[in-house]
Amino acid sequence: MSDIKKVVLAYSGGLDTSVIAKWLQTEYNCEVVTFTADLGQGEEVEPARAKAEALGIKEIFIDDLREEFARDFVFPMFRANTIYEGEYLLGTSIARPLIAKRLIEIANETGADAIAHGATGKGNDQVRFELGAYALKPGVKVIAPWREWDLTSRETLMAYCAEHDIKVENKAGKKSPYSMDANLLHISYEGDILENPWNEPEEDMWLWSVSPENAPDEAAYITLTFKNGDPVAIDGVDKSPATIMEELNKLAGAHGIGRVDIVENRYVGMKARGCYETPAGTVLLKAHRAIESITLDREAAHLKDELMPRYANLIYNGYWWSPERKMLQAAIDETQDVVNGDVRVKLYKGNVIVVGRRSDDTLFDEKIATFEDDAGAYDQKDAAGFIKLNALRLRTAAKKGRSFLK
Amino acid sequence: MSDIKKVVLAYSGGLDTSVIAKWLQTEYNCEVVTFTADLGQGEEVEPARAKAEALGIKEIFIDDLREEFARDFVFPMFRANTIYEGEYLLGTSIARPLIAKRLIEIANETGADAIAHGATGKGNDQVRFELGAYALKPGVKVIAPWREWDLTSRETLMAYCAEHDIKVENKAGKKSPYSMDANLLHISYEGDILENPWNEPEEDMWLWSVSPENAPDEAAYITLTFKNGDPVAIDGVDKSPATIMEELNKLAGAHGIGRVDIVENRYVGMKARGCYETPAGTVLLKAHRAIESITLDREAAHLKDELMPRYANLIYNGYWWSPERKMLQAAIDETQDVVNGDVRVKLYKGNVIVVGRRSDDTLFDEKIATFEDDAGAYDQKDAAGFIKLNALRLRTAAKKGRSFLK
Amino acid sequence: MSDIKKVVLAYSGGLDTSVIAKWLQTEYNCEVVTFTADLGQGEEVEPARAKAEALGIKEIFIDDLREEFARDFVFPMFRANTIYEGEYLLGTSIARPLIAKRLIEIANETGADAIAHGATGKGNDQVRFELGAYALKPGVKVIAPWREWDLTSRETLMAYCAEHDIKVENKAGKKSPYSMDANLLHISYEGDILENPWNEPEEDMWLWSVSPENAPDEAAYITLTFKNGDPVAIDGVDKSPATIMEELNKLAGAHGIGRVDIVENRYVGMKARGCYETPAGTVLLKAHRAIESITLDREAAHLKDELMPRYANLIYNGYWWSPERKMLQAAIDETQDVVNGDVRVKLYKGNVIVVGRRSDDTLFDEKIATFEDDAGAYDQKDAAGFIKLNALRLRTAAKKGRSFLK
Amino acid sequence: MSDIKKVVLAYSGGLDTSVIAKWLQTEYNCEVVTFTADLGQGEEVEPARAKAEALGIKEIFIDDLREEFARDFVFPMFRANTIYEGEYLLGTSIARPLIAKRLIEIANETGADAIAHGATGKGNDQVRFELGAYALKPGVKVIAPWREWDLTSRETLMAYCAEHDIKVENKAGKKSPYSMDANLLHISYEGDILENPWNEPEEDMWLWSVSPENAPDEAAYITLTFKNGDPVAIDGVDKSPATIMEELNKLAGAHGIGRVDIVENRYVGMKARGCYETPAGTVLLKAHRAIESITLDREAAHLKDELMPRYANLIYNGYWWSPERKMLQAAIDETQDVVNGDVRVKLYKGNVIVVGRRSDDTLFDEKIATFEDDAGAYDQKDAAGFIKLNALRLRTAAKKGRSFLK
Repeated sequence: MSDIKKVVLAYSGGLDTSVIAKWLQTEYNCEVVTFTADLGQGEEVEPARAKAEALGIKEIFIDDLREEFARDFVFPMFRANTIYEGEYLLGTSIARPLIAKRLIEIANETGADAIAHGATGKGNDQVRFELGAYALKPGVKVIAPWREWDLTSRETLMAYCAEHDIKVENKAGKKSPYSMDANLLHISYEGDILENPWNEPEEDMWLWSVSPENAPDEAAYITLTFKNGDPVAIDGVDKSPATIMEELNKLAGAHGIGRVDIVENRYVGMKARGCYETPAGTVLLKAHRAIESITLDREAAHLKDELMPRYANLIYNGYWWSPERKMLQAAIDETQDVVNGDVRVKLYKGNVIVVGRRSDDTLFDEKIATFEDDAGAYDQKDAAGFIKLNALRLRTAAKKGRSFLK
Repeated sequence: MSDIKKVVLAYSGGLDTSVIAKWLQTEYNCEVVTFTADLGQGEEVEPARAKAEALGIKEIFIDDLREEFARDFVFPMFRANTIYEGEYLLGTSIARPLIAKRLIEIANETGADAIAHGATGKGNDQVRFELGAYALKPGVKVIAPWREWDLTSRETLMAYCAEHDIKVENKAGKKSPYSMDANLLHISYEGDILENPWNEPEEDMWLWSVSPENAPDEAAYITLTFKNGDPVAIDGVDKSPATIMEELNKLAGAHGIGRVDIVENRYVGMKARGCYETPAGTVLLKAHRAIESITLDREAAHLKDELMPRYANLIYNGYWWSPERKMLQAAIDETQDVVNGDVRVKLYKGNVIVVGRRSDDTLFDEKIATFEDDAGAYDQKDAAGFIKLNALRLRTAAKKGRSFLK
Repeated sequence: MSDIKKVVLAYSGGLDTSVIAKWLQTEYNCEVVTFTADLGQGEEVEPARAKAEALGIKEIFIDDLREEFARDFVFPMFRANTIYEGEYLLGTSIARPLIAKRLIEIANETGADAIAHGATGKGNDQVRFELGAYALKPGVKVIAPWREWDLTSRETLMAYCAEHDIKVENKAGKKSPYSMDANLLHISYEGDILENPWNEPEEDMWLWSVSPENAPDEAAYITLTFKNGDPVAIDGVDKSPATIMEELNKLAGAHGIGRVDIVENRYVGMKARGCYETPAGTVLLKAHRAIESITLDREAAHLKDELMPRYANLIYNGYWWSPERKMLQAAIDETQDVVNGDVRVKLYKGNVIVVGRRSDDTLFDEKIATFEDDAGAYDQKDAAGFIKLNALRLRTAAKKGRSFLK
Repeated sequence: MSDIKKVVLAYSGGLDTSVIAKWLQTEYNCEVVTFTADLGQGEEVEPARAKAEALGIKEIFIDDLREEFARDFVFPMFRANTIYEGEYLLGTSIARPLIAKRLIEIANETGADAIAHGATGKGNDQVRFELGAYALKPGVKVIAPWREWDLTSRETLMAYCAEHDIKVENKAGKKSPYSMDANLLHISYEGDILENPWNEPEEDMWLWSVSPENAPDEAAYITLTFKNGDPVAIDGVDKSPATIMEELNKLAGAHGIGRVDIVENRYVGMKARGCYETPAGTVLLKAHRAIESITLDREAAHLKDELMPRYANLIYNGYWWSPERKMLQAAIDETQDVVNGDVRVKLYKGNVIVVGRRSDDTLFDEKIATFEDDAGAYDQKDAAGFIKLNALRLRTAAKKGRSFLK
């Protein structure tokens, strides 16, 4: 079928990627290396080892990437206050480039000439995996079984399992009807009743957060400390990036924070409904904007706001490993060395409310801003000249008879 | 002092603008025309008539501008999903161009050669009033007493009132210590303890909304209907623009929705703390994005998102009546004829949650988006070519030895 | 091979598209409709009729689209001062959407279910044809023989002609070794020695212009009149859009104007060398900027400049028929009603030199701009306040110890 | 008049700044420090010393800043292919931040509390000097005599000179009627007959270049070598930044290259006519784009093009020393490490024609771009999927009945 000798598979340990492993062995007649990552999805990754061994895999990679994920991917993205289409915090998108990077590193290490993944041909993830892989190892071959095989229904998959002795676990309880993805930043839901955008999600779909209704009647107050634009401490206690994500997920999720329900535009061309829980991210985004509000220069802040949608788009579309993302990151990072200080937030039944910000790097100057006597810090008469010259072009046009009343 | 003969004053009926009226009469020795507008601030405007008459004003204009304000200013702005600096819904900014327009219309009607306003020399409002006035009547003279006079303390003001027989009403109860502005879109608070950004606002400052804690335990569900990007009905009942604003303010305010507490960057160069209540606006912004999410083309939506910060900036800075605002408005409006349909939202303790969207103009195609069999609506194999060509430039660069790993 | 019944072919009358016509008939066993357009390429289109008839074509469309092309495609594009990658005036790109539109109109008229074109799988033109076709008739089928067949060498093509009795004309003289495309806006050259970007093009490649060395020693002066942003007259004589293009091509080409030699980035991912002659376009671009320089508001002009690269990109990539192009066009067109007046240009040995601009809509105000006494038109003291407030944020930051010296 | 004790004056040695020096001594009763810079304006700066001494100045600074100017200001700006309003290469604008920086350095060194300059209140230069000064020394005082004094006519100036014994040199020959500024990057002309935009400049106005008519009949060919985006050698010989500017100015000026004649929009609100000679800059801009065309990634190049107008605007308006300029510079510089290689240009009678580019870092891949057989480097079938998915959103909309034919 091809001349592929060894392929590194992004392997979750679940049924689909187990079938893929077997299918790669039989269809491509090649050696399969599995790679399983702990990105904070909240499930043990170690069990993937035995499953891989049962499939006859010899080279098995299981990595805890949580700190790298939070530090080198989530936090840099958050420096830009990144949101896709006004709502989505890019929880899945931002994990893909790290997985792509590890797939390629393992391919280089094990001498593999191909990578494979379990993403479908309709989604964004195939794009993100493959653009990353091609950017980092341009000669790599990519196998995307869902675009190739005929195991496209539950029945054919099951039959394949039976035929190839792949153990199908019957999990206790009801299987979730949703297609899901999880990591430190979020858990996502697609499919089933969500495929009609008029349907409200059912309460039992949500796994990480309580509903605002079920959240405590007592608000929680926390103080987040930022350094160089990144969160470094909660309530004065320094914590690692992944720990900050994990603790905020727990705390904010318990207060009903971080649910998102949207219809989004995929890079491959269609609209899709997605629901997301992003508790920590929702708090951090709000808090980061707040610390920037007192430390960042106005024009730098505005330029960041104008560049953000494009930056979000790049990440959503899978161009993390690209010259244009690096360009934008350089611009964003240039501004963050002064983004230091504390933000106090109140968490209450779905709300993240900023109630205070302070910083040694604050540009807020009470003496100038005050409604009281400012002791000459600001000369109000300057405003007249400021307005006059800003108005000059409009006046000149109006004198020529132009009307701005449409 | 100058050759001004008649000036149109933006007159609230309050103490400050009453003093200004008198001061204009005495210092400029000119006739004063007062203009008082009902923009939905929630206070009677008719009493301004008697106060103006008491000051000897002969030409008194009192206008109900609520529908014009909602229809021609707020709604066009909302078509762009406009937010300044990620948080502020521009409630004050968007009212100023309408006031400027009426000041100039009245100046033209009454033969006045000047306008005057009560905004200080430190704020944005002076800029917004004056840029608007100059754009619409380039030869107009502008008097901004706060930049000129020496009545800069409470004491000197009171002395002036005493000297000139201006009646100072002692309102029952405590006078608010905040500088406030209100209209259909919001009420704002500045000054006093807010001048320290680490201070949490006191609960009794907020006038339009209950706190999330005090909101009902039962959520409210409403359905908003949009036509050409504007809201036209609530729960299936057609309503005028101003009525929609008023009803949503009441309803959403009762559910603790729309409070904003930020530090913002003023056009005149300093940072300032502002608190805002924008109940209707908060709901409409969320709902408008939701209806756009199923009806707007992806690239149009993304372009709108990229242009929005600049558009918000224009409005914040006072350039509503400008060629560049008209340019952006033309681009935005071009997209809105398909933004039709219903959005169902849930209002609960500070949260606005979109729970459904539907439209005859929907671009959401369940047949393509589905995880189930799509009967050939989408050929997954196309994705391979799509990715390959999008990756080509990255692969070429990587083959040349370029690394994207920073 | 498929269920296609009738296909409209973009037919030049040349060998390649004649082979395609035959190939469609035999391979797809379908009826072929030919469409040949006069876009000002400078060759007779009528001879295509006999050639099509010789191939047994029954429905033959031959259209003179020159005026529509200039008026509805070239001129709207020029309103934006459009250039791709700083150099390319988009001569080929802007013709494709018109061809796509006619292909679809003819398909609708003749009941065809498919279109076909002779563009290769490596270029941008396939994308432009097909995006246009899909946008205007979403169910249309597209046949791109160069992506399908095996006639990929000169030899196999010739063998095919011999086998199918397709007459191969042996033109007198040497056949051009370049791949070329021409219309009212330009003629393009690719391939052969140009495939090495270090090679200088040979002088005999250029067909429309003399070299600057061979241009007249006497400069030509002409005056172009613009109305609503479009050129409408040369030296005071009103002319149709296509006539303006034709006359300027002749005149400017005779003065050695409009040669471009670049390496450009294709949408399909590779870099390609292209040489272009765009005499009329080069003059019009320069003149349009000049008339805008005195009639357009500063901020509108700057916003246009910022949007232009994106607009150019859309056209280059084939998205003329798209919501985002319409959005940008709306913004651009909004500004052009005041772009009226005369521009005097000097044409001399490759140079287009603007030597004068005048307009009833000029915003140039000699009284304000003058170095001489301006009789109070501008108060220089206003500048102090203007600068002070613009500097405020920088001073505040500097006082906090921030350094802007990198 | 104020409490200023010592002021650093940007001193050219000419009449105007000599009058200013005297006026500062008498009106402000303060000590004056003069600063005269060689920025490559082509005039001796040393004579300024004797003139300053004659005015009684004790602290005299005369600096050769040519290398710093070219290396740290002109070249970084050129990395962005910077042009203001499509035409102006920012020759004056880019010199001002360096002068501001030196004024402040000297103020710090000499303990001065103020700076002064000879720019008028109508121009951009006052803004550029003062924004720079305030950004680098926020407490500095600024004196701009032209905004303050009453020596606003030639007569009053002459009378002042007579009264204060300031020697007025009567230069041999006719005095230029133009207001001029010169440095390594350009020489500029404003005023006099240029104040009517319909007037063609007279040939004897231009000082640095011959007219294309008077340029040699023989073209010159040179090869420029770039490293990290900056020019480093001419015809294979390494040269310093200032030397490159000087040599190219001479060579290109002799070939009639670099004249610009425009109406531009000033930051202070009016339109102004300016003529410029920028020989070296015109060559470098063209050559830099050419070397980027083969070495820069497409999306990085496009992003640079979109950011450029804003970057140009910042420099034009005087915001070199600002957070937003640093942000954009970081993005631009991030892309330039691969911008290495040679560009061969032909200079002929006003034309700069790129005739070759080559680079070890080239991304131009002849094997992919070729019209000939590419041995499988590119699979044309991939294009079908690429187009299909890019068209999907347009097809979906069209199926819903949307028309893109306006």
